[in-house]
Amino acid sequence: MTTPSSYTRVLLAARPESGKPIDPNTVFSVKHEPFALSPGEGQVLIKVLYASLDPAMRGWINASGSYMDPVPVGSTMRSIDLAVVVSSGPGCTLKPGDNVQGMFGWTEYAVVPEKRATKLLPPPPGAELLDYLGPLGPTGLTAYFGLKDIGQLKKGEILVVSGAAGATGSVACQIGKKWGARVFGIAGGKDKCEWLEKECGVEKAIDYKSPTFHEDVKKYIGKFDVFFDNVGGEMLDFLLTRMNRHARVIVCGGISEYNKALPAGLHSYLNLISARARMEGFLFMDYEARFPEGFTELAGMLGSGELKRKFHVVQGVENAPEALGLLYSGGNEGKLVVKIGEEGVRPRM
Amino acid sequence: MTTPSSYTRVLLAARPESGKPIDPNTVFSVKHEPFALSPGEGQVLIKVLYASLDPAMRGWINASGSYMDPVPVGSTMRSIDLAVVVSSGPGCTLKPGDNVQGMFGWTEYAVVPEKRATKLLPPPPGAELLDYLGPLGPTGLTAYFGLKDIGQLKKGEILVVSGAAGATGSVACQIGKKWGARVFGIAGGKDKCEWLEKECGVEKAIDYKSPTFHEDVKKYIGKFDVFFDNVGGEMLDFLLTRMNRHARVIVCGGISEYNKALPAGLHSYLNLISARARMEGFLFMDYEARFPEGFTELAGMLGSGELKRKFHVVQGVENAPEALGLLYSGGNEGKLVVKIGEEGVRPRM
Repeated sequence: MTTPSSYTRVLLAARPESGKPIDPNTVFSVKHEPFALSPGEGQVLIKVLYASLDPAMRGWINASGSYMDPVPVGSTMRSIDLAVVVSSGPGCTLKPGDNVQGMFGWTEYAVVPEKRATKLLPPPPGAELLDYLGPLGPTGLTAYFGLKDIGQLKKGEILVVSGAAGATGSVACQIGKKWGARVFGIAGGKDKCEWLEKECGVEKAIDYKSPTFHEDVKKYIGKFDVFFDNVGGEMLDFLLTRMNRHARVIVCGGISEYNKALPAGLHSYLNLISARARMEGFLFMDYEARFPEGFTELAGMLGSGELKRKFHVVQGVENAPEALGLLYSGGNEGKLVVKIGEEGVRPRM
Repeated sequence: MTTPSSYTRVLLAARPESGKPIDPNTVFSVKHEPFALSPGEGQVLIKVLYASLDPAMRGWINASGSYMDPVPVGSTMRSIDLAVVVSSGPGCTLKPGDNVQGMFGWTEYAVVPEKRATKLLPPPPGAELLDYLGPLGPTGLTAYFGLKDIGQLKKGEILVVSGAAGATGSVACQIGKKWGARVFGIAGGKDKCEWLEKECGVEKAIDYKSPTFHEDVKKYIGKFDVFFDNVGGEMLDFLLTRMNRHARVIVCGGISEYNKALPAGLHSYLNLISARARMEGFLFMDYEARFPEGFTELAGMLGSGELKRKFHVVQGVENAPEALGLLYSGGNEGKLVVKIGEEGVRPRM
């Protein structure tokens, strides 16, 4: 492959204002760099194909950090990416053309230590490379371990999923269905609800934008055994009044609250006592030793056609800052990714 | 025993106003009844010795109920009592003089189905009858199963107990100490804090009324592994920012919130994700099959002198309504009970 004379990356230019949506034009800046990347000992030069956009990014760029150190201002924005190896430095086992996954960030090219690039196997039957950022990646594994270990979902139980049409939520719905639960989804708008009912095995999808949302939850769901929550805030507070005895709330995310300085308060938490119920948070990365277990289940569902997924693909790394806002407005349809480089082009050295 | 010509009981006269402290004069009424109690088939006449006053009573008298049906307006106020059998109807195995425990309510005498009266063994060495309403009763068993099953407290972990000088909290502190945890208590006022440090094995007791409360928690405790929470509200919300990874919050009660129409909201619950932490509610009564396990541990600690406890005894059933308010103002010192009848007087038939 002839390397270009320049490449583009997107920097974190400033921390977002607390309590406000991220302003893409002040928080990020697009930079064109002369191409002077060459892998040293133990390093690889990679070309990024896709970057995953995730709600947790808000936490990564806040000054306080979250479960990871905050992204330093002035450095490439962090993201989980799929990439292809262009060239390897001395002592590397990765070879040009190998597909890899890692936190390479919002950039077209990067030189990274080989140990930070995980080699990807060819996608299993029924899957494509992009699925490594979806059902076969962080979002799929989050759904799997959330339901399995935190929710301990059992056959016949009532599962409610919020953010149900999202990347994690839609996989959670379908795993729940496969495991024999009665699955209810909460999503915003008619299109998302229809997709959930028609494609994702959801018994009834409930539109949280409807003025009858609370009544609809009572009417169609009643009470739940397991709540896989991606949304938080007022919706979660209401759901805490709809718990069956020994209910489990999987605290996966709080998309409604990430842009607020002070998240909406939960007033109904004392119901945890009368319901003998539990709220528990988790991160998929803690289950690394058991990734093969989750991967096997998810790959099997993809192979059999049981697992539907949608990708919302935005073109070009320079459009990543603007696209990120879609997650917090509910504007994306399916797993949001930025296509940064062409997958099909086999690099020539 | 010569039975009296009349006896006193206290009725629930009206439901308390939502969001306000219980007004003892409008919510309860004292009634003197002619003594016309006689046990029928399978019934016993009991004389109540002590009634336990518990924070949960607020939930019992609200219209919405809680984990039990609400006490009907016009009926004797519900409470957990110690009593002695005065006489038994046909077909009973309980005998006059037997000590029993049950939900007999705020009354000097009652006729109840024998099956609703649990016969008490003589108190084990180092214990007295009243301990059946404390360390050997609901509060002790709540502390035991909360720490054991919900908190899964392990040796060397940092345990924080709120309402630490209370009936449940003080037992939780001492069990925690026995099990090898580093124990920190939160209580209101210097006297309670001193008692916790001197008598209850608490490494440092922190006064929540102090203006430096938050700084004190950070300075002396840092972060916790297990939080046994009896208080809820703003204190809990703050503690949710002080969790070690895999922390467990035992949601035992919310004494700060029971009198509010809308409990203070928890804004910090998303920390459950980054800390991979859990909040879980429970009720001791679910562990009935394992009461002997908890009883053995607690009786052993009483017998060896390891378990300190205080009772705050109010005299006379007619004073129960006023005394109940002490729980919500923090005015009681130790387990609050109402002494209704004399224990020592052996009934003569």
